[in-house]
Amino acid sequence: MRLVTISEIEAAAHRVAGTAVRTPLLRQPWASGELWVKPESLQQIGAFKIRGAYNAIAALEDADRARGVVAYSSGNHAQAVAYSAHAFGIPAVIVVPDVAPRLKVDATRRWGAEVVEVPIAEQAPAALAIARERGLTLIPPFDHLDVIAGQGTIGLEIAADLPDVETVLVPVSGGGLAAGIGTAIKALRPGAKVYGVEPELAGDSAESLRIGRRVEWPMERRARTIADGLRAQPSELTFAHLRKVLDGIVTVTEDEIRDTVRALARQARLVAEPSGATATAAFLHHSGELPGGRTVAVVSGGNIDPALLAELLA
Amino acid sequence: MRLVTISEIEAAAHRVAGTAVRTPLLRQPWASGELWVKPESLQQIGAFKIRGAYNAIAALEDADRARGVVAYSSGNHAQAVAYSAHAFGIPAVIVVPDVAPRLKVDATRRWGAEVVEVPIAEQAPAALAIARERGLTLIPPFDHLDVIAGQGTIGLEIAADLPDVETVLVPVSGGGLAAGIGTAIKALRPGAKVYGVEPELAGDSAESLRIGRRVEWPMERRARTIADGLRAQPSELTFAHLRKVLDGIVTVTEDEIRDTVRALARQARLVAEPSGATATAAFLHHSGELPGGRTVAVVSGGNIDPALLAELLA
Repeated sequence: MRLVTISEIEAAAHRVAGTAVRTPLLRQPWASGELWVKPESLQQIGAFKIRGAYNAIAALEDADRARGVVAYSSGNHAQAVAYSAHAFGIPAVIVVPDVAPRLKVDATRRWGAEVVEVPIAEQAPAALAIARERGLTLIPPFDHLDVIAGQGTIGLEIAADLPDVETVLVPVSGGGLAAGIGTAIKALRPGAKVYGVEPELAGDSAESLRIGRRVEWPMERRARTIADGLRAQPSELTFAHLRKVLDGIVTVTEDEIRDTVRALARQARLVAEPSGATATAAFLHHSGELPGGRTVAVVSGGNIDPALLAELLA
Repeated sequence: MRLVTISEIEAAAHRVAGTAVRTPLLRQPWASGELWVKPESLQQIGAFKIRGAYNAIAALEDADRARGVVAYSSGNHAQAVAYSAHAFGIPAVIVVPDVAPRLKVDATRRWGAEVVEVPIAEQAPAALAIARERGLTLIPPFDHLDVIAGQGTIGLEIAADLPDVETVLVPVSGGGLAAGIGTAIKALRPGAKVYGVEPELAGDSAESLRIGRRVEWPMERRARTIADGLRAQPSELTFAHLRKVLDGIVTVTEDEIRDTVRALARQARLVAEPSGATATAAFLHHSGELPGGRTVAVVSGGNIDPALLAELLA
């Protein structure tokens, strides 16, 4: 299986420049140890997903791109594809489950995308049917080299901004983010360690890496975590990357995630969604399982229900 | 009276590089019109004040700096001076009123500063006495050319990141921030307009600029605003800058400030303190009084009581 290369990630960086925010590394003096966070929550759609989606669309042949794109997602990938299509002035169809939160659906419509609501089990087949019928290109959330390359641009920025980085912590769901960042860091800073972070309640990748092959956790089991962005599972492609580039996976509890959403708001002045807080939670609560030193935790997104944030702050 | 020059601001930029975060400009697509925010809330101390304090200390003669510094403040300037002194490895004494919030005093102590608590009316004389007795240099919060030059580095970054900026909105309290940013913008982008923003309840500078001389509002009157960082008044020095570089001042209501703290958390994923939200509030609620076009609002700080943020989000 062919894995993404550092030159593909560098090409992605040229494509996403001017669209993705060049997020700063923010030193967190309140945490004991040397922690920087990378606030991808500050992207216009509130999450890193813009990097992969935009890169994948930018990499299409002009004629294919002009016909438009389709995606299925109820979360940050939906907004990322809708936003990127809007930026290119091309049509986008987003297939969402009919149970998707109204707020997220509205955010997707804001970018002019056509939203198609279907029962949750029909999302993928509906998107494939639309792609075929209308000649649109499907943009997957993680199972694609161009998407992985786009997420990897975060790794380039970490290596540039903190050249002597020792540890990088990245949330793992479908694995595209960790695959891309891990590839970039291992190419540019081979001495640095890269750890994935998962909720205990969706720890399928930790188990898979331990036994060396992908295990399936049923969706009902993964759905228990508050980290709603981390309920997907790696594909063969992303899992092959994770086996190569990750030095390990740390799992965090629901209480640790909640505590870290609170700490990021109070101490770092960042609004993080539960998924986005997991890597920082690993630094704060699992330092014994990590190599330590100069550490970067990726805050992957900030799309949290305001009522939940209020509850955690009160 | 001598005003700060663009070359002093450029010199300040070299000094603060590596200490102050190079904050990005963040486009806010949810706001109608073309709005970018500059999140100074992401500085390590949670506010822009680090730029001026650090620049003023860096500009001291080596022997003076080595003896140490003193400041009086209960707010963000206290942390800025303590942090900067810590970075230089020099002693710092911070004189705080005995009514200062415990949280802010603790944050100041974190940087190793000696904290001296006195009745609020004795803050300034106590600081001056300590400076004289111990040979320390007083670092004022705004009434100093080096402090103004440090805050002005924000203007350089705005001009670099958005070369065709048309309007810049800046909170006004003691006036150091608006003086510095206004000077930089008028030097580099003479076509752009620079507006100050004040709470209606602390609108002394708006009134002063209208009548062309400084008016005094009694502290009891200014203390009514929720924007606790905007209760100071310009000095002769900062007022002379404001008269030269501001195109006007907009005032915002308490409700508009609260609404904007909420909007910044929900839509921009930024934790802003009430003072820090005022410039964005002017954009959202007073567009009719502003020239419009590509607009940057400075989010000056993020040190908000978590209970207040929770209340505004719920």
